[in-house]
Amino acid sequence: MISVPVNKTLLRLTKRRKTHKKAFGAVPGQLVHHEGSVNGQIRVIHFDSKTLDDRIVDSVGDLAGYAASETTTDETAAPRRKGVTWINIDGVGDIEKLGELSRLFGIHPLAMEDVVNVHQHAKLEFFGDTFFFVARMPSGADGFNTEQVSLFLIDGVVITIQERPGDCLEPVRYRIANKLGRIRRRRSDYLAYAIIDAIVDGYFPLLDQYSEKLDEAGTLLENGGDRSLPLHLHNIRSDLLLIRKVVNQHRVALNEILRDEAEIVGPDTALYFRDCQDHIQQLMEAADTDRETCGELRELYFAMLGEKNNDVMKVLTIIATIFIPMSFVAGIYGMNFDSDASMLNMPELHWAFGYPFALALMATMAGGLLAFLYRKGWLA
Amino acid sequence: MISVPVNKTLLRLTKRRKTHKKAFGAVPGQLVHHEGSVNGQIRVIHFDSKTLDDRIVDSVGDLAGYAASETTTDETAAPRRKGVTWINIDGVGDIEKLGELSRLFGIHPLAMEDVVNVHQHAKLEFFGDTFFFVARMPSGADGFNTEQVSLFLIDGVVITIQERPGDCLEPVRYRIANKLGRIRRRRSDYLAYAIIDAIVDGYFPLLDQYSEKLDEAGTLLENGGDRSLPLHLHNIRSDLLLIRKVVNQHRVALNEILRDEAEIVGPDTALYFRDCQDHIQQLMEAADTDRETCGELRELYFAMLGEKNNDVMKVLTIIATIFIPMSFVAGIYGMNFDSDASMLNMPELHWAFGYPFALALMATMAGGLLAFLYRKGWLA
Amino acid sequence: MISVPVNKTLLRLTKRRKTHKKAFGAVPGQLVHHEGSVNGQIRVIHFDSKTLDDRIVDSVGDLAGYAASETTTDETAAPRRKGVTWINIDGVGDIEKLGELSRLFGIHPLAMEDVVNVHQHAKLEFFGDTFFFVARMPSGADGFNTEQVSLFLIDGVVITIQERPGDCLEPVRYRIANKLGRIRRRRSDYLAYAIIDAIVDGYFPLLDQYSEKLDEAGTLLENGGDRSLPLHLHNIRSDLLLIRKVVNQHRVALNEILRDEAEIVGPDTALYFRDCQDHIQQLMEAADTDRETCGELRELYFAMLGEKNNDVMKVLTIIATIFIPMSFVAGIYGMNFDSDASMLNMPELHWAFGYPFALALMATMAGGLLAFLYRKGWLA
Amino acid sequence: MISVPVNKTLLRLTKRRKTHKKAFGAVPGQLVHHEGSVNGQIRVIHFDSKTLDDRIVDSVGDLAGYAASETTTDETAAPRRKGVTWINIDGVGDIEKLGELSRLFGIHPLAMEDVVNVHQHAKLEFFGDTFFFVARMPSGADGFNTEQVSLFLIDGVVITIQERPGDCLEPVRYRIANKLGRIRRRRSDYLAYAIIDAIVDGYFPLLDQYSEKLDEAGTLLENGGDRSLPLHLHNIRSDLLLIRKVVNQHRVALNEILRDEAEIVGPDTALYFRDCQDHIQQLMEAADTDRETCGELRELYFAMLGEKNNDVMKVLTIIATIFIPMSFVAGIYGMNFDSDASMLNMPELHWAFGYPFALALMATMAGGLLAFLYRKGWLA
Amino acid sequence: MISVPVNKTLLRLTKRRKTHKKAFGAVPGQLVHHEGSVNGQIRVIHFDSKTLDDRIVDSVGDLAGYAASETTTDETAAPRRKGVTWINIDGVGDIEKLGELSRLFGIHPLAMEDVVNVHQHAKLEFFGDTFFFVARMPSGADGFNTEQVSLFLIDGVVITIQERPGDCLEPVRYRIANKLGRIRRRRSDYLAYAIIDAIVDGYFPLLDQYSEKLDEAGTLLENGGDRSLPLHLHNIRSDLLLIRKVVNQHRVALNEILRDEAEIVGPDTALYFRDCQDHIQQLMEAADTDRETCGELRELYFAMLGEKNNDVMKVLTIIATIFIPMSFVAGIYGMNFDSDASMLNMPELHWAFGYPFALALMATMAGGLLAFLYRKGWLA
Repeated sequence: MISVPVNKTLLRLTKRRKTHKKAFGAVPGQLVHHEGSVNGQIRVIHFDSKTLDDRIVDSVGDLAGYAASETTTDETAAPRRKGVTWINIDGVGDIEKLGELSRLFGIHPLAMEDVVNVHQHAKLEFFGDTFFFVARMPSGADGFNTEQVSLFLIDGVVITIQERPGDCLEPVRYRIANKLGRIRRRRSDYLAYAIIDAIVDGYFPLLDQYSEKLDEAGTLLENGGDRSLPLHLHNIRSDLLLIRKVVNQHRVALNEILRDEAEIVGPDTALYFRDCQDHIQQLMEAADTDRETCGELRELYFAMLGEKNNDVMKVLTIIATIFIPMSFVAGIYGMNFDSDASMLNMPELHWAFGYPFALALMATMAGGLLAFLYRKGWLA
Repeated sequence: MISVPVNKTLLRLTKRRKTHKKAFGAVPGQLVHHEGSVNGQIRVIHFDSKTLDDRIVDSVGDLAGYAASETTTDETAAPRRKGVTWINIDGVGDIEKLGELSRLFGIHPLAMEDVVNVHQHAKLEFFGDTFFFVARMPSGADGFNTEQVSLFLIDGVVITIQERPGDCLEPVRYRIANKLGRIRRRRSDYLAYAIIDAIVDGYFPLLDQYSEKLDEAGTLLENGGDRSLPLHLHNIRSDLLLIRKVVNQHRVALNEILRDEAEIVGPDTALYFRDCQDHIQQLMEAADTDRETCGELRELYFAMLGEKNNDVMKVLTIIATIFIPMSFVAGIYGMNFDSDASMLNMPELHWAFGYPFALALMATMAGGLLAFLYRKGWLA
Repeated sequence: MISVPVNKTLLRLTKRRKTHKKAFGAVPGQLVHHEGSVNGQIRVIHFDSKTLDDRIVDSVGDLAGYAASETTTDETAAPRRKGVTWINIDGVGDIEKLGELSRLFGIHPLAMEDVVNVHQHAKLEFFGDTFFFVARMPSGADGFNTEQVSLFLIDGVVITIQERPGDCLEPVRYRIANKLGRIRRRRSDYLAYAIIDAIVDGYFPLLDQYSEKLDEAGTLLENGGDRSLPLHLHNIRSDLLLIRKVVNQHRVALNEILRDEAEIVGPDTALYFRDCQDHIQQLMEAADTDRETCGELRELYFAMLGEKNNDVMKVLTIIATIFIPMSFVAGIYGMNFDSDASMLNMPELHWAFGYPFALALMATMAGGLLAFLYRKGWLA
Repeated sequence: MISVPVNKTLLRLTKRRKTHKKAFGAVPGQLVHHEGSVNGQIRVIHFDSKTLDDRIVDSVGDLAGYAASETTTDETAAPRRKGVTWINIDGVGDIEKLGELSRLFGIHPLAMEDVVNVHQHAKLEFFGDTFFFVARMPSGADGFNTEQVSLFLIDGVVITIQERPGDCLEPVRYRIANKLGRIRRRRSDYLAYAIIDAIVDGYFPLLDQYSEKLDEAGTLLENGGDRSLPLHLHNIRSDLLLIRKVVNQHRVALNEILRDEAEIVGPDTALYFRDCQDHIQQLMEAADTDRETCGELRELYFAMLGEKNNDVMKVLTIIATIFIPMSFVAGIYGMNFDSDASMLNMPELHWAFGYPFALALMATMAGGLLAFLYRKGWLA
Repeated sequence: MISVPVNKTLLRLTKRRKTHKKAFGAVPGQLVHHEGSVNGQIRVIHFDSKTLDDRIVDSVGDLAGYAASETTTDETAAPRRKGVTWINIDGVGDIEKLGELSRLFGIHPLAMEDVVNVHQHAKLEFFGDTFFFVARMPSGADGFNTEQVSLFLIDGVVITIQERPGDCLEPVRYRIANKLGRIRRRRSDYLAYAIIDAIVDGYFPLLDQYSEKLDEAGTLLENGGDRSLPLHLHNIRSDLLLIRKVVNQHRVALNEILRDEAEIVGPDTALYFRDCQDHIQQLMEAADTDRETCGELRELYFAMLGEKNNDVMKVLTIIATIFIPMSFVAGIYGMNFDSDASMLNMPELHWAFGYPFALALMATMAGGLLAFLYRKGWLA
């Protein structure tokens, strides 16, 4: 039966939407431990164009050195610190640790609340001078799931807080470690860009998975298809719509960065954010063409199914049509006209070759009909 | 039957359009009490970056303090007042109160008329220096309904007049109360933006409702669907079109603000209005993809229905096709050829095993046909 | 039959196109009295921010006062006249009057020819310094018809010449009379904008008519539809395409104004023309979604029709399928096997309960089949 | 049969594409006389704002006066010549004449080769300072055919070389002759624009032809349609696609002009090229909506055909269904149960009114069925 | 059977995607010899506006002269070298040669790795000051295959490394050799543009191939089509999607160039890159309309197939329907009512002309039915 697959997906969809909605209407100012999130480690990468320091830190207190020189300095007057610091925290389960971090870097409690309530949609917010970006990172091996990454840009420090350990930010770390590209020569706003870009690029393999699913659906179709195919395609299409929606949220949020460019990110970094939007555009177009392919495959399935059904009906109807005239002849000679009453009344019944004649007549009719159908090319 | 759902919706659509049209051709200069609107309270929020004063005021006379310094001052020469005042009035039922307000703040009678005639479409108008924005706020728990919110921006004062009590502006009040974001540090044009943005964002949960309706329609489809589904989907689609239309009116009106930016809203606030337009764009895209999903579900419904019908027809035709050759055999042996006239005339009738032979012949034909159909895979 | 509605519309379409084409290839320089156009009155509205003079003038000679100071003055050297003059002429039937006007205001004969040949498409042209705009104004209560409005902007004077009396410019006159908006404080280019904008806005009620027609088509569909529906929808769709085309001509012409902004309209008035283009965009989008709805309703109609047909076929096939096995049994016992030849040959014929047995057998087969169909849910 | 129309068009399409492709891979530097091109006359129009000289010239040598002052002058240092010269040559058959022209005006041999090889697609090229534009002008009364127009802009001289005599440039000549618009007051770049614009505008009547073909197809559909309609529409659609492609080539080439505006065309003339692009946009949109209408008409055709087929099948099935129960009754009373064996065995056979009873039973069944179908509304 | 074509294509698609993916996750810093790549020659073209030197070089060492003056010079301070050098290497099989090249010109090892791992998607990267562009060049006569071209722009030197010998860059070499266009007067950034543009233009003939395939599919359709057509069209469509995807990658990469214009390519060369994007736009539109045509042809195929099936069913049903009433008459006179019991019981059986009467009755019924069908136009 066709019921199971759709049911699960729709439930999944509904659930996702519900949690999103809850995020909209969350009671403000209250830290709630979100079920399933894991408490993880703190990793600090500090670098400038020449030096690099990458280490795991035990407690938030160890971060004091990075924060102090920042939050106590008047941003505009003081000379910019040379280095860039990236603090990454895996998991939002340890509320106390996050609270401590919040106090240390002067993060607004409402922002911290959004960090912990991991069902935000991608957005940009400003709390005072703090640039706060919420991104959704694709996560999990199977199907479409996202994990929330909260990113703060506070002067020279970038803080990322992930919902779960494991991310798609390795290329960024690799580029920092290997002095690749511009990342070591630029400031913290470029690091923020690099992280957001890596998250956005993480959607490419996800879309590739869906492309492969569509390839498999194509192969299935080639082997005649299967009744669950239309609903399977509908599910893929729904997931693609959802990906498109999430990716589009990033686009809108990046637009806001680009508008505010003068204040937070420099005009040169703004250029890179435009590249990032190009990638988003590419993702959205890819999702759209895949969605279109879904529709195309479904139509192909129904068209091929219809063709098959037509074949069945045609064969059955041909069989019936061949027998009907023969049955008519049999009906004729089953009539009870009284041969005694007249010479005209069914003399065939008393012919010596009456029965063979009738059978031959039937065979002729069937043969003629078959010849007609064959000549028309309808027996192929 | 399918008649009821469409009827109601179409009536609803027609009604809405008619009232819109009436608004176009309203007799100018005449205040009419609109049926169903409620007379509500006056709430004044006055704030600057440090102080906040939020209270319910009994009569329009109590507002004199806020208006006086404004309307009597030459705008360009006098120094700008520090604070921002937001006057909100719930309900447009008390014509006298609104008239008093109009005189106090120097609002043009024709603008006041639009306030009372609550079927305006979203628009921007200028009456002298008064910035007058009409927004449509989604309202009501079920289906698509909007309520008119009229917003005046007169120097440092923002006046909002709502059709009914209850709104989606709580987030704005919350941000003012909690000094969140930039709202307390900016001027009245930013407040106007924040209110319009909150109204626009109020369409997101509405669209979520329609997404859920589509999910439910998907679940219904999974359980085999129901004859009213196509028309139900048509109704959802019509509502989505209407939402798109209303939201688009806001986009056009905001475009006019952006063109006039130098005069009313500062260039920095204009940036925020662009964010607002991004949200509108997102709403419109969401409405479009939902509409597309409507079409997709309808096609899926009809395709699945067609498939089911094909199954029925196939089974019936198979049954008929099996009996037709058997009937033919029966017809043969129902013929009345005279066995006495010749040895060739139906000798089977006189065989000892004639009848079993005939039955066996029939069974063979039916069995052969079934085997053929089975081998073709048409019995599945 | 379905022929009548399409026939008329197609004729109408063809006719419209033909007249458009004639306009393309008109013999230049020759004033032709166009059949059906009416000779109307001349109305002059002269205003500045303080004074207003609105009157009906008998002859073109009375306009000399407005033209004299204009055409004899060197535009760049002389100080701009304070007031704005709007001369409106209803009807293009009085060739002499128009010729006189042409001489008075120095209008190029080729422009005058376009005024009289009322099948121009919307366009912008320049004859020397004369700004000449041809607009198409929706006209007539039923269906899609347009009337040509020719607008000249010659320094401080705006001349509009309409094909027929009756227009959608009342809102402009009202705003002038009541000092509404900016119209009294701005120059003649703003008046030209206001008139063109009012003409464009005149398409909104027209599109509303088509939306209502679509609603009615929806209601018709709900009551089962009617064979003429697809062609009726095709006609609506063709009209919408035509509206879109005409409106798009205005958009292209306005684009040319915006490019030339420095020369004719000031940069501030150009902003308003952009608003006007927003409205055109809105019109085109509305026409597009209505066209889409046409397609949707047609598909819905055919899908519902197909469903109904399927129902008919199913019922008929069920009836046939029930009788076929019963007829087979009757065929069996109509065979003529010789019971005397063997005990095996149709002993049932001689049973005491043979006939009831046969009838019971038939009833059982029919009942079994019905039960099968019922259990499958195919009798619903 | 349906084969003829498609065959021709497809051949035509393929041929066109092939020649285009040949143009891509043409051997460079070799002048080939193209079959079918005609050797035509040379017409020179020389004008400035006051004087006009229009005459037919016998040989290229007579053009020396126009070329000399141009090619021998240093462009940047020398003062611009007052007048504008337009040299038009009909036909590319006289290779020697073209070679002479090429030497006289210093046209690059490779450009000249493109002129002669008349299957170029529309493009802009620069050979040194020579602006070389290849346009495709619609030509021929029936169907979609284009002729190549090569345009050189060499300082004050515009040279156009047409594939065949006859063009759509009369409006340009008329405007020059009658001092209409700006053409007499502007320089040679404006003339180049006016010519290109006239060529682009030449596609409007062509598209009108296709619109009329669609109208005729609509009329055909109204009269029940015809089996060749779908392929006829497919052919129209293919032509529209080709028009769109050709027109789009002009758009891309014009884009390149606009990018290079500073070098060749002045910024003020660039504005007019933007108008030209607006027209191309309009053409492309018109082609798109016509293509859409093709699809719509085809769907309508198949839907109406399907409806007609459904009617046929329904009527046939109703006839069959009415006879089946009656045949069943006849089958019953054709059974051979032995009335002698029992009172229960077919006593009806021996009733006095047995036969009338059977006939009445049949009539009742047929009538009941008809009544049922009538009540259901299926006999309509 | 329909299985073979789809299978191959889908495998091909999957394979391609897989290799792309591998490229994403390639282990960095490791040179792998890619199977199938060929070791080719080194060709150096050095030119300025006056001189040209084009030769085949044996070893990388011979390139030292071109590199030395570049990499040792401080780019900003030193005067720009006059000439432009284009080094082209066919094949990426000789790892050592490439390593030597990398050291000579200071190319980053990670870039070199991308050169060798020939499954990169088109992209722009910066390694220090080195501009590194990866393009995908259409290659191979049959179907859609691409070859990787890696392009480095290092001050005055352009290095291109191709996956295989054979390219579509001849037009560039021709223009250099013949001083055509601007190429000899411009710097290395213009050469880089010319090469990338030639690669992009290489997709036009590829798309033409697909257009021809669609023409052939149209011809096939005209001859009645073939069961493999829908899947064949699906494959063409998939290839077009892939082309679109690859071409779009170039568009995104070019966007990045345009953003960085100030740093690498001059503002004047940026203009040319915009032309290149116009071509990409044209390619993408062409691919889109071809894809649309795929859909159109498929629909046409299924519609024509459906029509043919309907014809078959109609003819068969007509045959059946004609025999059914005749069989009914035969059934009537096969009834066994006892004529002895009553005068009313089937007196026809004993009429002298009973049998001819029955046959005539049958013929009348069949004839009447045929006449009815003929009058309805259903026999056509």
